[in-house]
Amino acid sequence: MIRFNNDYNHGAHPAILEALRKTNSESYGGYGLDPWCKKAAEAIKKEIGCPDAAVHFLVGGTQANYTVISAALRPFQSVIAADCGHIQVHETGAVEHIGHKIEVLPSANGKITAAQIAEKAELYRTSCVQEHITQPKMVYISYPTEVGSLYSKKELEEIRRVCDQYKLYLFVDGARMGYGLGSPESDLSAADLARLTDAFYFGGTKCGALFGEAVVLLHPALQEDFRSCIKQNGAMLAKGWLLGLQFHTLFENGLYFDITKRAVALALKIRDAFVCKGFKLYSNSHTNQQFIILDRATMEKLAEKYIFEFQEQIDENRIAVRFCTSWSTTEEEVNTLIKDIEKL
Amino acid sequence: MIRFNNDYNHGAHPAILEALRKTNSESYGGYGLDPWCKKAAEAIKKEIGCPDAAVHFLVGGTQANYTVISAALRPFQSVIAADCGHIQVHETGAVEHIGHKIEVLPSANGKITAAQIAEKAELYRTSCVQEHITQPKMVYISYPTEVGSLYSKKELEEIRRVCDQYKLYLFVDGARMGYGLGSPESDLSAADLARLTDAFYFGGTKCGALFGEAVVLLHPALQEDFRSCIKQNGAMLAKGWLLGLQFHTLFENGLYFDITKRAVALALKIRDAFVCKGFKLYSNSHTNQQFIILDRATMEKLAEKYIFEFQEQIDENRIAVRFCTSWSTTEEEVNTLIKDIEKL
Amino acid sequence: MIRFNNDYNHGAHPAILEALRKTNSESYGGYGLDPWCKKAAEAIKKEIGCPDAAVHFLVGGTQANYTVISAALRPFQSVIAADCGHIQVHETGAVEHIGHKIEVLPSANGKITAAQIAEKAELYRTSCVQEHITQPKMVYISYPTEVGSLYSKKELEEIRRVCDQYKLYLFVDGARMGYGLGSPESDLSAADLARLTDAFYFGGTKCGALFGEAVVLLHPALQEDFRSCIKQNGAMLAKGWLLGLQFHTLFENGLYFDITKRAVALALKIRDAFVCKGFKLYSNSHTNQQFIILDRATMEKLAEKYIFEFQEQIDENRIAVRFCTSWSTTEEEVNTLIKDIEKL
Amino acid sequence: MIRFNNDYNHGAHPAILEALRKTNSESYGGYGLDPWCKKAAEAIKKEIGCPDAAVHFLVGGTQANYTVISAALRPFQSVIAADCGHIQVHETGAVEHIGHKIEVLPSANGKITAAQIAEKAELYRTSCVQEHITQPKMVYISYPTEVGSLYSKKELEEIRRVCDQYKLYLFVDGARMGYGLGSPESDLSAADLARLTDAFYFGGTKCGALFGEAVVLLHPALQEDFRSCIKQNGAMLAKGWLLGLQFHTLFENGLYFDITKRAVALALKIRDAFVCKGFKLYSNSHTNQQFIILDRATMEKLAEKYIFEFQEQIDENRIAVRFCTSWSTTEEEVNTLIKDIEKL
Repeated sequence: MIRFNNDYNHGAHPAILEALRKTNSESYGGYGLDPWCKKAAEAIKKEIGCPDAAVHFLVGGTQANYTVISAALRPFQSVIAADCGHIQVHETGAVEHIGHKIEVLPSANGKITAAQIAEKAELYRTSCVQEHITQPKMVYISYPTEVGSLYSKKELEEIRRVCDQYKLYLFVDGARMGYGLGSPESDLSAADLARLTDAFYFGGTKCGALFGEAVVLLHPALQEDFRSCIKQNGAMLAKGWLLGLQFHTLFENGLYFDITKRAVALALKIRDAFVCKGFKLYSNSHTNQQFIILDRATMEKLAEKYIFEFQEQIDENRIAVRFCTSWSTTEEEVNTLIKDIEKL
Repeated sequence: MIRFNNDYNHGAHPAILEALRKTNSESYGGYGLDPWCKKAAEAIKKEIGCPDAAVHFLVGGTQANYTVISAALRPFQSVIAADCGHIQVHETGAVEHIGHKIEVLPSANGKITAAQIAEKAELYRTSCVQEHITQPKMVYISYPTEVGSLYSKKELEEIRRVCDQYKLYLFVDGARMGYGLGSPESDLSAADLARLTDAFYFGGTKCGALFGEAVVLLHPALQEDFRSCIKQNGAMLAKGWLLGLQFHTLFENGLYFDITKRAVALALKIRDAFVCKGFKLYSNSHTNQQFIILDRATMEKLAEKYIFEFQEQIDENRIAVRFCTSWSTTEEEVNTLIKDIEKL
Repeated sequence: MIRFNNDYNHGAHPAILEALRKTNSESYGGYGLDPWCKKAAEAIKKEIGCPDAAVHFLVGGTQANYTVISAALRPFQSVIAADCGHIQVHETGAVEHIGHKIEVLPSANGKITAAQIAEKAELYRTSCVQEHITQPKMVYISYPTEVGSLYSKKELEEIRRVCDQYKLYLFVDGARMGYGLGSPESDLSAADLARLTDAFYFGGTKCGALFGEAVVLLHPALQEDFRSCIKQNGAMLAKGWLLGLQFHTLFENGLYFDITKRAVALALKIRDAFVCKGFKLYSNSHTNQQFIILDRATMEKLAEKYIFEFQEQIDENRIAVRFCTSWSTTEEEVNTLIKDIEKL
Repeated sequence: MIRFNNDYNHGAHPAILEALRKTNSESYGGYGLDPWCKKAAEAIKKEIGCPDAAVHFLVGGTQANYTVISAALRPFQSVIAADCGHIQVHETGAVEHIGHKIEVLPSANGKITAAQIAEKAELYRTSCVQEHITQPKMVYISYPTEVGSLYSKKELEEIRRVCDQYKLYLFVDGARMGYGLGSPESDLSAADLARLTDAFYFGGTKCGALFGEAVVLLHPALQEDFRSCIKQNGAMLAKGWLLGLQFHTLFENGLYFDITKRAVALALKIRDAFVCKGFKLYSNSHTNQQFIILDRATMEKLAEKYIFEFQEQIDENRIAVRFCTSWSTTEEEVNTLIKDIEKL
């Protein structure tokens, strides 16, 4: 069986394992106060052209999401998110568990718009019962989105404008950031992201690391005492240098984007193969996740040889499924799949 | 100006003030451990025909809602509610503040259906990623709903069946319970309510008391240690007998329903007057809140003499507004309004 | 039986009931947005000589405590309190329930000192593992304390200095504020309190009202969006004018202090009677609560005629008990008690 | 410089790195649903002789602590802990952050007693104001304790008896469990622990793994829906097999105890060397952490060559410090230290 089910089904890029091996006999200070975390933070700050950013390394995405949200909001403040947003649908109510309401907006192609956000914020601003409703204070989006789509620079700039107008923080879930910035369709640089957002993260877990998310805090108010938030939320790794070392390996010489660009290129080949055969796409993704609508027979045929993920039942006979690539996907695996698609 | 804006704009029914006056020089034990609370609880248990119920007196509705929810759910469990549910729209995220997600269902005429609830619960039951999503464990509805409509006995029995099937608690917000059970349209008795739900409350604040909600807990699991939950959530009144005394006054001789039936009758007269003149209703309410769609000119005309509440902008020219009656509404006020409606 | 068990065992001072009666047929806007709340706030601001204060009316003390704390602190920040502090011992973990640790200091005569607070704050400031411990950000004290004692102006000024030095908020639980400021032993004015603290409240429940606490917010950061905090924490009364009206009655013409000064004077007579007979005091209280150490036989003798409260088992034979006076305590009741003490 | 500062300053035991290397090209299901987690759970259940236990793998200790506590308690319930307990002093209020009060007991030699717990529980049971105080529902202890000491089997059995009597859960923090069970002083087996507790964990982070804690749930009520709690608390690793693989490596052939027994033996040699030279011990530890009281000059002398940790300032001239051993400590390092101690 060949796995295209997700981008976290293998260990780590070999360079990361090698770095772990080489440093295993060294001793370090704990909790992220070590030279590797420092170096990795420097590399990331250089990547985004933002020396004043604060960079912290957390273990996982759910942690990163609710820790940032918990750090940013007062109790009566809420976070605006798409109906398909990860915090809304797949984190077991972690954001509500730490006390905050998610204000849900309907999404199209995985995205929400500046106009929708403005409408929500304006509703609060003009409400005559403000104290009876939660105060939107943060916008949470994902780049790429849950269905692989990308905000354009223009879209993001518009969202930023609305956030400035209504004093909202803009926080970008970057669990797959590498595949977003690494997409040929993306017109955003890492520096753009740093310029336009208040906080975001470079996902490691899904982009070649064993685990780890590099949270980048741009807004000074979010930087304050963030290490206390990390610890309180169970997100501070004792052997923190394991995170720093991985991100140093990924960011020192561009490995992060080498990995993700390659995976995106492979995914786009899969996309093209399906499109050529007349299959409909579930979303317009130019990243490493491809969502295809299959009839049941085709799905079952492919499932004999490939592992891919169920996304949604479209109707009685049609199902949306996800094919995913990652650092561990080989050209050979993709070519085999493409040949089988062509034969369908 | 004549006030129809809400049902809590006056003090209390005179019988309640008189009871307060008469007992003011008496001394009592605190925190709800007094003879009045005991008598009031007995009267309510008699009303619902349920001697095993636990009855507690809280100050307000938001308190009642989140205290019951907090008592009932484990951290990863959620409460299902209508998109117009009070806990969803008008309690400043109090439910999320104490840690729980609200699973929102679209409503029609203010109501959600057994089928919708079953679908949501089934989605969880059959999910292959259960631990990534919240577990629905309680259904929250209002009787009457936020727009004055009523669940029929059949609808409630169907919801109960789904709750039994999926082991969900059924909790009914009864801030206006008197107007619901007191409506000629209602086919539910207080005993039906006790039989079909796990918890509900008889609202006092909006039904003639100065303040207070009588929470009735039917399910044994919800009864356990509930006083600790009340105190922890800031909902335990030091001079608790003030609550017991008010509910005793309301329930000892049927005053509660005398008040609410009269108010409903007045509201239905207002409804009829609007309907006769060809105005459209915003919702189908047979309770004390009437939601009418007015054109701007009519609204402004009526606003010269009456205070009523804005509900929703329907389109450029049409606005839904609310007219509300209560114990303090006089026949004369209603007749004056009706004459003015007829003149429109 | 004559009740000296607490100061909330009767309804309200007759002037308050009368005010309720007189306004019962008036209609008002809800949720504290009414003329009485406005007038009461003005009277209180005048009393404390602080026009920039924000005054809010909440129903009870537990609510007032955790709502202010929740409004003030970020998640990793803690509140410093005496080991006998009400939030620590008698609020069912309400402060922890909304997410905050209480840093407990040992008390003497119910009080904590500026030096103790400084030591705690300094421990944090100089900690090399700051992110592993909570950050003290607020000091919570009671005036008078749980055992009736009073901070002197000098003590409070010293605490203020430490709070300024370490950027801590100073919050004073004033459930019995009237008995504190109304004590002949007090060298504090209401204006001093406003000058020296960031937030405090004038308790109503225990000082002659049916219920209600007037929260006074001095620090601008605490004032921001406080109404949202009130609503979220279930502490916003629908018929808010009931609170405003009571505090207006208490503060318009000095009734609040008339009530509490009188009650303190009666309590001091009880104290003197016990002391004259050689009984030891449990605490040095010059307010309306008197804590006396009795041998078992004496306690049982007095318990035949009087209701008073158990405080603490001192040793096998000796028990500390509490005698409390309030607006409803009569001279006659006190004289009867004193005679019985003299006969012991 | 030679590091004795803690037991998490190196990577992982080589066998673990080797296991990671060997499996890096394999693909696995995510979130702990993989063969390695299954095998590791089986090995641990065999070790404790308890086939009905549920074993879950979390990343870190703070996570493990608050996730278990959050899963076990209703909102008004508290956890009893020693004043030196990790949850009380070094987790940034994580337990309070998720809503629970810690009831603190004074410790002696790092331990609390069955009698103290019984007294606390009895205080609640006999309280006439139960609803005003939190309900103790769990006892949290550490094995070994924060200062390296060990509960005897008899002590633990007594605590168990009290827990049974008062229906309290017994939860043991086992961040250093290997060093506890691996101590020659311990009279407990892993099976005893499983028999006497409701939940505990085998720490990996400090016992040779890169990271990871194996949480063992014995009580059926704690087992229910625990994976939802893990996910909600940000403690579910995407590549969960990394945890399973490490614990499999540690438990399949006894490596876990080989590592910890060896480290304890080295620590006891250090202890003996200090004792022989007449140094006083800060605590009576027979595990891998040794707490020694040094005068300032000696401390500074040793600090020229060794890194060890500050524990507490005893008086002006004397300081308690910690020397720690682990899998990475070499005989040579210990011998060098011992020679330097002898020369003091």
